[in-house]
Amino acid sequence: MLNRVRSAVAHLVSSGGAPPPSPKSPDLPKATSALPAAPPEAPRSPPARAERGSAAPAKTVEARASFSRPTFLQLSPGGLRRADDHAGRAVQSPPDTGRRLPWSTGYAEVINAGKSRHNEDQACCEVVYVEGRKSVSGAPREPSRGQGLCFYYWGLFDGHAGGGAAEMASRLLHRHIQEQLKDLVEILQDPSPPPLCLPSTPGAPGSSDPSHLVGPQSCWSSQKEVTHESLVVGAIENAFQLMDEQMARERRGHQVEGGCCALVVVYLLGKVYVANAGDSRAIIVRNGEIIPMSREFTPETERQRLQLLGFLKPELLGGEFTHLEFPRRIQPKELGQRMLYRDQNMTGWAYKKIELEDLRFPLVCGEGKKARVMATIGVTRGLGDHNLRVCSSTLPIKPFLSCFPEVRVYDLTQYEHCPDDVLVLGTDGLWDVTSDCEVHSSGPSSGPGGPGHPSGPWLASPQQQAGFRG
Amino acid sequence: MLNRVRSAVAHLVSSGGAPPPSPKSPDLPKATSALPAAPPEAPRSPPARAERGSAAPAKTVEARASFSRPTFLQLSPGGLRRADDHAGRAVQSPPDTGRRLPWSTGYAEVINAGKSRHNEDQACCEVVYVEGRKSVSGAPREPSRGQGLCFYYWGLFDGHAGGGAAEMASRLLHRHIQEQLKDLVEILQDPSPPPLCLPSTPGAPGSSDPSHLVGPQSCWSSQKEVTHESLVVGAIENAFQLMDEQMARERRGHQVEGGCCALVVVYLLGKVYVANAGDSRAIIVRNGEIIPMSREFTPETERQRLQLLGFLKPELLGGEFTHLEFPRRIQPKELGQRMLYRDQNMTGWAYKKIELEDLRFPLVCGEGKKARVMATIGVTRGLGDHNLRVCSSTLPIKPFLSCFPEVRVYDLTQYEHCPDDVLVLGTDGLWDVTSDCEVHSSGPSSGPGGPGHPSGPWLASPQQQAGFRG
Repeated sequence: MLNRVRSAVAHLVSSGGAPPPSPKSPDLPKATSALPAAPPEAPRSPPARAERGSAAPAKTVEARASFSRPTFLQLSPGGLRRADDHAGRAVQSPPDTGRRLPWSTGYAEVINAGKSRHNEDQACCEVVYVEGRKSVSGAPREPSRGQGLCFYYWGLFDGHAGGGAAEMASRLLHRHIQEQLKDLVEILQDPSPPPLCLPSTPGAPGSSDPSHLVGPQSCWSSQKEVTHESLVVGAIENAFQLMDEQMARERRGHQVEGGCCALVVVYLLGKVYVANAGDSRAIIVRNGEIIPMSREFTPETERQRLQLLGFLKPELLGGEFTHLEFPRRIQPKELGQRMLYRDQNMTGWAYKKIELEDLRFPLVCGEGKKARVMATIGVTRGLGDHNLRVCSSTLPIKPFLSCFPEVRVYDLTQYEHCPDDVLVLGTDGLWDVTSDCEVHSSGPSSGPGGPGHPSGPWLASPQQQAGFRG
Repeated sequence: MLNRVRSAVAHLVSSGGAPPPSPKSPDLPKATSALPAAPPEAPRSPPARAERGSAAPAKTVEARASFSRPTFLQLSPGGLRRADDHAGRAVQSPPDTGRRLPWSTGYAEVINAGKSRHNEDQACCEVVYVEGRKSVSGAPREPSRGQGLCFYYWGLFDGHAGGGAAEMASRLLHRHIQEQLKDLVEILQDPSPPPLCLPSTPGAPGSSDPSHLVGPQSCWSSQKEVTHESLVVGAIENAFQLMDEQMARERRGHQVEGGCCALVVVYLLGKVYVANAGDSRAIIVRNGEIIPMSREFTPETERQRLQLLGFLKPELLGGEFTHLEFPRRIQPKELGQRMLYRDQNMTGWAYKKIELEDLRFPLVCGEGKKARVMATIGVTRGLGDHNLRVCSSTLPIKPFLSCFPEVRVYDLTQYEHCPDDVLVLGTDGLWDVTSDCEVHSSGPSSGPGGPGHPSGPWLASPQQQAGFRG
């Protein structure tokens, strides 16, 4: 199957197309969307009654989510049926119409036969224009598109337990990022350090930085330096949280069922921001060297965070689970014997006498692909899952799942790149069967992406395999 | 001052002495203590009344703690006075009596003039014999010293707010480790994987590993592999916790005042275990290459752990602190303006409208050496501090301070070593003024330590500078 995806990607890359816009230039043309994108639906806080919303829009969303594939695939109704065909498993790539995705992005996906009724994964590729909300310096200013910012955006959403969350994230997460960046448009274009404090209303003076007010020996005397880069990171982090909150609010009205891992890339002002919440993975291949741009969040890698939460908030375990980890299931007849265990602060193992409460299910169990939180879910970060409950129970899983991504930054201006360099995004399905090195060496040996920067990505999941490649 | 310590170390290394026992051999001679060590005072759980203990033993401990220096320095009463002299600041090293510390360990310390009345730091260097508690296989067995284990032990305890905790840790932490290892003596010498479950009483059969009881697809079906190494790590982790609990129990009866960072090294069965709780640091120099063996735990490096705890347990903040971080102190007149902040899940910064509760003191403030938890303490891991309160308040700091170390393992049998190779332990005082590279290059160019393994350490703190060097 991987070879079929490889072929699809190679075909995609070898086709012609307009040269990609230079990623080094922050002065991009005004609001463009190189793709037949989703309607620019700005994130909003619906009135409270929306939570109880009517069944009609919910059905509409659900019906659409069940069959939709990424808009840039431009699938006809027949193509949509083929993409949803578990027997044929046709590889889907953007059509060879001469119109390229930005940065010569390549993409391919295939349904993972039999795993769920429809493909629950989604992807997104956009160029997003950010118009400043108002002048930071205080004076109200006429909005001017020429003074805004553009960012390039790629997103990969590995859905589970339904397609609604991945569908919603693919349509809206970049809008949340756009919204978060609106306050920063002027600040990010000003080379001086970001102001620590802003006036509450335009026109009002901001406060000075009163470091002289405290003694030099106090921990108060210092004033932290905040970089432009860290503002973008904070904007992306908050966008993930707001996206997740929106899903929680709208889950009844619109049946945002399920959850999804989210791996997104934002290119802004010379830097690539890779934000990962889940078990997808991103790598950059630079002159044959592989640079990891994410790490996976699973019950195993996040064991101590999960255990700490269960330890500090035992009510979340509902008397059904123990926050302790054991190397295997304990049997009731072993009560009183001594079993190996790990507590939340431990990386090593020790023996403890088995007590009655140790017979509860462990919060984290299993290994590798079988590792689970509360015996239910195998990833620990992502969006959605607000309805997810422990099997045969009303206990919610969500408090243990975090919507916050880890964001890594790659400064494109700091490195020399060759045409073969590439940024690869993949859901776990790709990485389960392919190492970082194999992904790299299997790619086409040359692409039309402009020299001096890497281009698109490559991927796969339980449901899909796809490739973005420059 | 550093040069004086360097000279002391060079002098120490150039002196003769018995060759060190081979660190590669696990079959060490029976219970030896190469040092005039503290009496082998096993850790114990005192009866409850000990918490209210009489004033007499408390005074004795306190008086001893105030003036004591590591026993291996063999200081006379006059030497003890000179070691405590803030004007002279004499560098202290073990006497050149021809009797070497194990592994040609070097050591030097000096009082940090004027910082506290007495030197609050301590050090320890021991060879500890561990006798198995009983036969794991079930049959009661006659204790036999020949079947026990030996470990080498070096400890560095950087005290603060009093010398009691460092004094107690230097006398007892290795006994806690010894106690934890007693159950593992047979298991660690048996090459087969450790049993996951042990019988509750000697002679009773242990349970088999019932992986066949569950289906192959369940997260329960797997059985984790637990290594011998992870048992030693777990033993050290639990020893730190038990040491801390003992300090909490005995703090009234014995006036265990203050707290201490703890950096200890255990050499056992071919592996070096470096456990660090605090802002001390250990490095191994191997063929000129520096291998970090610890990381520092400070309000900055542990910001997110501290903020998470404050977020999940707001009662620990007593209505006086906010778990949010701001880049500088907020003034009341800034209420309603927008300030940069970081929440517990964020690595980036974002703006938020300043509300009344944001005017509280931040849980973590300041930068670098001035960073503080609750405006009080600049380290976030260590032993003791059970009496520590926020200045002008009854709010305890301890819940935010963790006694758990991070343990790193270095397998001596996996590497080739030359005679110049060395393990260096230093409290923050050394590393504040000296980089890893400088410490390495300033050491003596050759030592008598046996080839094939590195030897001792090197160090300094707010109060002392010292060197262990092979």
